[in-house]
Amino acid sequence: MQKLLKKRSKKVGQPPGTLIHIGEETAKDASISVIAYRDEQFLEKEAASVEECLTFKNSESVSWINVEGINRPDILEKLGQCFGIHPLALEDIMATDQRPKIDDFGDYLFIVLKMIRYNGNNGGLDMEQVSLVLGRNFVISFQEGREGDVFDPVRERLRTAKGRIRKMGADYLVYALMDSIVDNYFTVLEKLGEAIESIEEKLVIDPTPDTLHLMHELKRDMIFLRKSVWPLREVISSLERGESPLIDKSTAIYMRDIYDHTIQVIDTVETFRDMLAGMLDIYLSSVSNRLNSVMKVLTVIATIFMPLSFFVGLYGMNFKYMPELEWHWGYPTVLVVMAVIAGWMLVLFKRKRWL
Amino acid sequence: MQKLLKKRSKKVGQPPGTLIHIGEETAKDASISVIAYRDEQFLEKEAASVEECLTFKNSESVSWINVEGINRPDILEKLGQCFGIHPLALEDIMATDQRPKIDDFGDYLFIVLKMIRYNGNNGGLDMEQVSLVLGRNFVISFQEGREGDVFDPVRERLRTAKGRIRKMGADYLVYALMDSIVDNYFTVLEKLGEAIESIEEKLVIDPTPDTLHLMHELKRDMIFLRKSVWPLREVISSLERGESPLIDKSTAIYMRDIYDHTIQVIDTVETFRDMLAGMLDIYLSSVSNRLNSVMKVLTVIATIFMPLSFFVGLYGMNFKYMPELEWHWGYPTVLVVMAVIAGWMLVLFKRKRWL
Amino acid sequence: MQKLLKKRSKKVGQPPGTLIHIGEETAKDASISVIAYRDEQFLEKEAASVEECLTFKNSESVSWINVEGINRPDILEKLGQCFGIHPLALEDIMATDQRPKIDDFGDYLFIVLKMIRYNGNNGGLDMEQVSLVLGRNFVISFQEGREGDVFDPVRERLRTAKGRIRKMGADYLVYALMDSIVDNYFTVLEKLGEAIESIEEKLVIDPTPDTLHLMHELKRDMIFLRKSVWPLREVISSLERGESPLIDKSTAIYMRDIYDHTIQVIDTVETFRDMLAGMLDIYLSSVSNRLNSVMKVLTVIATIFMPLSFFVGLYGMNFKYMPELEWHWGYPTVLVVMAVIAGWMLVLFKRKRWL
Amino acid sequence: MQKLLKKRSKKVGQPPGTLIHIGEETAKDASISVIAYRDEQFLEKEAASVEECLTFKNSESVSWINVEGINRPDILEKLGQCFGIHPLALEDIMATDQRPKIDDFGDYLFIVLKMIRYNGNNGGLDMEQVSLVLGRNFVISFQEGREGDVFDPVRERLRTAKGRIRKMGADYLVYALMDSIVDNYFTVLEKLGEAIESIEEKLVIDPTPDTLHLMHELKRDMIFLRKSVWPLREVISSLERGESPLIDKSTAIYMRDIYDHTIQVIDTVETFRDMLAGMLDIYLSSVSNRLNSVMKVLTVIATIFMPLSFFVGLYGMNFKYMPELEWHWGYPTVLVVMAVIAGWMLVLFKRKRWL
Amino acid sequence: MQKLLKKRSKKVGQPPGTLIHIGEETAKDASISVIAYRDEQFLEKEAASVEECLTFKNSESVSWINVEGINRPDILEKLGQCFGIHPLALEDIMATDQRPKIDDFGDYLFIVLKMIRYNGNNGGLDMEQVSLVLGRNFVISFQEGREGDVFDPVRERLRTAKGRIRKMGADYLVYALMDSIVDNYFTVLEKLGEAIESIEEKLVIDPTPDTLHLMHELKRDMIFLRKSVWPLREVISSLERGESPLIDKSTAIYMRDIYDHTIQVIDTVETFRDMLAGMLDIYLSSVSNRLNSVMKVLTVIATIFMPLSFFVGLYGMNFKYMPELEWHWGYPTVLVVMAVIAGWMLVLFKRKRWL
Repeated sequence: MQKLLKKRSKKVGQPPGTLIHIGEETAKDASISVIAYRDEQFLEKEAASVEECLTFKNSESVSWINVEGINRPDILEKLGQCFGIHPLALEDIMATDQRPKIDDFGDYLFIVLKMIRYNGNNGGLDMEQVSLVLGRNFVISFQEGREGDVFDPVRERLRTAKGRIRKMGADYLVYALMDSIVDNYFTVLEKLGEAIESIEEKLVIDPTPDTLHLMHELKRDMIFLRKSVWPLREVISSLERGESPLIDKSTAIYMRDIYDHTIQVIDTVETFRDMLAGMLDIYLSSVSNRLNSVMKVLTVIATIFMPLSFFVGLYGMNFKYMPELEWHWGYPTVLVVMAVIAGWMLVLFKRKRWL
Repeated sequence: MQKLLKKRSKKVGQPPGTLIHIGEETAKDASISVIAYRDEQFLEKEAASVEECLTFKNSESVSWINVEGINRPDILEKLGQCFGIHPLALEDIMATDQRPKIDDFGDYLFIVLKMIRYNGNNGGLDMEQVSLVLGRNFVISFQEGREGDVFDPVRERLRTAKGRIRKMGADYLVYALMDSIVDNYFTVLEKLGEAIESIEEKLVIDPTPDTLHLMHELKRDMIFLRKSVWPLREVISSLERGESPLIDKSTAIYMRDIYDHTIQVIDTVETFRDMLAGMLDIYLSSVSNRLNSVMKVLTVIATIFMPLSFFVGLYGMNFKYMPELEWHWGYPTVLVVMAVIAGWMLVLFKRKRWL
Repeated sequence: MQKLLKKRSKKVGQPPGTLIHIGEETAKDASISVIAYRDEQFLEKEAASVEECLTFKNSESVSWINVEGINRPDILEKLGQCFGIHPLALEDIMATDQRPKIDDFGDYLFIVLKMIRYNGNNGGLDMEQVSLVLGRNFVISFQEGREGDVFDPVRERLRTAKGRIRKMGADYLVYALMDSIVDNYFTVLEKLGEAIESIEEKLVIDPTPDTLHLMHELKRDMIFLRKSVWPLREVISSLERGESPLIDKSTAIYMRDIYDHTIQVIDTVETFRDMLAGMLDIYLSSVSNRLNSVMKVLTVIATIFMPLSFFVGLYGMNFKYMPELEWHWGYPTVLVVMAVIAGWMLVLFKRKRWL
Repeated sequence: MQKLLKKRSKKVGQPPGTLIHIGEETAKDASISVIAYRDEQFLEKEAASVEECLTFKNSESVSWINVEGINRPDILEKLGQCFGIHPLALEDIMATDQRPKIDDFGDYLFIVLKMIRYNGNNGGLDMEQVSLVLGRNFVISFQEGREGDVFDPVRERLRTAKGRIRKMGADYLVYALMDSIVDNYFTVLEKLGEAIESIEEKLVIDPTPDTLHLMHELKRDMIFLRKSVWPLREVISSLERGESPLIDKSTAIYMRDIYDHTIQVIDTVETFRDMLAGMLDIYLSSVSNRLNSVMKVLTVIATIFMPLSFFVGLYGMNFKYMPELEWHWGYPTVLVVMAVIAGWMLVLFKRKRWL
Repeated sequence: MQKLLKKRSKKVGQPPGTLIHIGEETAKDASISVIAYRDEQFLEKEAASVEECLTFKNSESVSWINVEGINRPDILEKLGQCFGIHPLALEDIMATDQRPKIDDFGDYLFIVLKMIRYNGNNGGLDMEQVSLVLGRNFVISFQEGREGDVFDPVRERLRTAKGRIRKMGADYLVYALMDSIVDNYFTVLEKLGEAIESIEEKLVIDPTPDTLHLMHELKRDMIFLRKSVWPLREVISSLERGESPLIDKSTAIYMRDIYDHTIQVIDTVETFRDMLAGMLDIYLSSVSNRLNSVMKVLTVIATIFMPLSFFVGLYGMNFKYMPELEWHWGYPTVLVVMAVIAGWMLVLFKRKRWL
């Protein structure tokens, strides 16, 4: 299950800009890959050291430097010095409990996003922080270093020159990366939507306390999803308004497209929350209804057998002078009277719809 | 029942502007119909191919090109090229999970709306996405291709030149189409209102778990309706403010009229939501009340017969020396005592209003 | 009871400006009355036909034309042509499901309001739509045509020249009419407040399911009242800001007064909603409390008599060798033992405060 | 208890500016006291008639005219004429159901506030409307005329020239009066806070339906308090911004201080509301918990004694051939068996933690 | 436990600027420590008297005067006179019930913050008000005087000249102090997060009324935390916008960093509130579920043994003519019949899943 909070306390008391990793430790060591392109040119390689990347800073082509794993302060520091990234931004890259945000540092934009995966096994969401630095002709992306990412289609498009991506600048690349991330939210939402619909069906047929716990976990997921998506709205809206000269007019129209998608994601999250709230009401009232029906069974049984037991007890008394006991038809009469009483009560309950 | 979410995942990883159909498949093949008019002139025909439509682009008359069925990327691409529609707009036309929106592309406005029908059979709402492209002298409308639409009265008015529609431009046609869609919301709301009122009556007479499920489904409908109508407010408000030169001043006053209607629809949806929330409270407390009355019956029965059973048990004991058993009036005395006890308890319960 | 929604569906498909009556049919035929005044001059008469009114259009005096009954499209059309009222405004006058609004048509202001009456008999609110057209020197008011209105004090003031009304222009007359309507809301609120307070008392003494239904109906009333009053705020605020040249500076100060009253009405409606929500909580927990006390009675009875019944059953067994049965003091001993058990339990329950 | 609504209906139909008293009648007749001061000068007296006050209008000193009791239209009218107060303001002074507000009439500011006292006896809040008229060199305050007010410390400071009050103008006097009123809210909040904390303790120890009613009354108080304090925020904010030339720059800094206090009061009211909502949840679940424990007692008793009663009933049957009855150890055996059953059940319940 | 409200009532009636201590009394006497630095220079000492501090006012170096304990009006007054602090600010320093705020007095900024510590022992939060006065080259901080503070890391950095702190001005020092306080909130949130997660686990395994009270206390903590953090947002936002010349551009970027942290804290508090609300629902429904299962046990027992008891009672009747009693196989037959009935019922309950 997603932890409520990441351990930020180890940072307490450090001067600002101190690079301390906050987040899960990953086994993988940090690795750096570079893609550089311009129209027909295309270069892709794994960088053995940080220094290799630096040559791309002033090249003509657009470079995408992807850093997998952020637990190595030395790598970040070198990159930071070379590309002129502010220590506070570097600090935020390493602290994976950031909320999505955009900071305009003039020469470059610093963007923080959340990449979300649905983890089928333990039913929770898996979040990975992605930080993007957009300069004039380069994009540096930092990932937490967990297995896999959602950028493969972008890489594929760059390799095959599919679409317009090779003809556009670094801002379009940032758009493409952000679009991959937001598109992936829909995959997650589909999974959650299926989970909600399957619970909804269970609710009608046979609600159990387990159903309740599933709902609670989905609600929890929704809270986390919401926390990641709401601030995204402002981030992309600020990109769309084209406030930074780093974002070209022609790219802004694509940003509007992601903006629409983000609104759609937010809308869906809110719809899911509404659905879950409604389902909780259904659950609670079905529990009450079941209590009602249990009590009705008890009441029917008690109401029928208590008078009868009284009757048979009555004629079990040992008084010397009880004339009925001597009657020849006493026993059958009592039996008939009791049958009538029981029958009458059954009819009564039928009418009250308790049976 | 309305699906919570349409399958958007197949789009993941595609470059922007890739035309992929998202939504239910319809059996019908895409068809195109054209209406062109100007004052006294009127022309209506089915277009066999896309190319036929293209002649209308630069004509003097106002043309309305209605495309039924959006699962054919080739048709959309041709239309897009001819009328200069941006690939992102074409993509949105094919993705039927859009929320209502308006995008101003300078030369043309791109509007997305939801056409809603009340489906009496399975109690749900039936949504169809309608995309409108408004150019200087043409309107292109795209429908998902399901049987029927709400535009017949507009067609009729165009044919018979009823009202001012033949004298006005393409902006007025867009107004007329949007007005048809919003007017239709009232029909849906009336149906839902009737459903709510019939449930409200049931709640008073005899609330069952079924009532609860009906309420849950109505609530669900309301969530979807709300999702479709709220964004419409902004869309029409932006048209009314006359920010685009494509909307004439004289048409803006009509847009204000639809704006008022949209607010009325939103108001009514919110009222219905409030009503449903209140009805859920009534339901829950009537379930509790019923539990109360069941328990009262049980308690009354138990309280009357438990002491009586004790009494008859008492005189069923086999002690050798129980003087009462020998008394001649023992039995009648016990009977009277028990009758007094039972009667006294009945009076007590009457006073407590449990009977 | 107030209908949730008026039948708007018959308008679907009609061109804008089509005059169709939406609302309850009233038996009364439409009637027109005219009051014209200027300082010392005063004229009041019933107009036999629409044409009679037209003479007042360009007179020096201020004219108030009051139309009772809006189900006659011909009358509205004639009036509309004469005073230059836009067809969309005429359409809104006839459709009585409008929300309060103000439209500035340049030459005249078009205002829609709701006149509310408390209907003691069936406990609901009775709403009537009032549309006002304010021109330079005339006011036309349209009412739905139900018996009576709240304008009598205004008429009286006009007749007797009480206050400053005869010295002021048409804008002040509109103010006076709106003030009458808003003042009347206080009367309605007082009635509702009394209803709430009487329910509150019942809640403390003896809450029944009926109390719940009364609360539900009040909540419903509140929803409708709120719907009528909230938009009024904007309407009057726009009049107060004096955006239209038709509203004089000296009248704007009076508009601020109605504005304050409207805020007071809204405040009170919200307070009532809060009160009702709190009362529902009280109701629900008093139902739970009563269940608790019912169950306590049952438990006390069962806990006392079940062991006793076991005891008497024990000595009702027919074993041959049961020494106690032979004892001379067996019976009294058992009686004493049982009395002790019962007494001890009563003490226990007393301590637990169940009795 | 605070009435939900004051009788405003008697005003319906009156022309604006009609002076009608709305509010509780007080036995005391209206009285007027005047304080005039300037540096070293200080004058304090009871005014026998309104005319006496008029001399202070154009004096050099700052005058504070305090009117106790607002049920005398003649007094208000005279004051109004002399100091040029608008009839609508006079009307608002007499209508004690105003919400706090500020109206800028150019020459003077008209401020309405609520003075609140905690009434220990019947547990409710006692509200008194205070209207202030701030002119260039005078302040007129109107109170409803109930015993006592919160202005005594201000009077004392004026008499003893403590602080800077005698050196400052009329605006500072208004500040001092408003500060007294807002400061007094803290006293009320402290009392309510104590009430909430004492209820919170009761909730833990022994929640009864009375606790619930106390909570309901506190909630009610909170609703009224909130209604009086929220609008105050805007009032003081408008004074602080120094929009009126009647408020000096040096006084504005003091207004900011009251503004902070008002925000603190609002914050506390909201905190109390949150606390009360949380306490209601605690109450409801403790009621449910208690029901649970009652039911457990019942179930334990029934589960133990029902099988035992069956057993003893079994051997109370009168069949001729029941071998067990003849056994010598029959009776003790049955006793042992029953003890074992009962013991085993007790162990079971212990394990389920029902005992 | 945190008191709901501090005793402000003793201030009622005092002129503004009266220095009265509001808050808990601390045993410690007020003490003053001074740190002065500039690049390589560094001085740290305890000030024996207020006068000692005054020399730092016009020095070249940056001075940080830390006052521990605010219950000595004389010290504050002297400091106030020397550094020109407004009496209203001094008053706010001594009143520890302030909400976080910033006041711009031109020459200096006055900032109020809350330092929060998690008090493990009694489970509550411990709040201490910190007031900061930022002048051109000095910072004065006032603490309530409780043991310890969160500024030690800042002192350490000043002493060791770690980071850039010794090279920057007084504004950076204020930033560092505020950063320490906000960083500490994360420590508190981590503790609360752990508490929430441990309760969440308990909820699944074995919810008791104690769990509910823990939740209630956490909710209470959350209310107080929220009250301290929300206003902080505005405070820091105002610092970040660089409205005051006392905040340098280069420091503003650091303020943006704290701003992000504050938003993160607010986000987390809201998430925790959502979690707690969800957990309350789980708790309530698990209580209902348990009631259900208790009732099922009772019903099963009653349903099985009531008919059996009736049967044995039947053959305990003393009628003279009861043929079954004479049968040789009567007793075994009855036993078999009863076993069949009981078995059949058990099967029935199994099927209904009550067992």
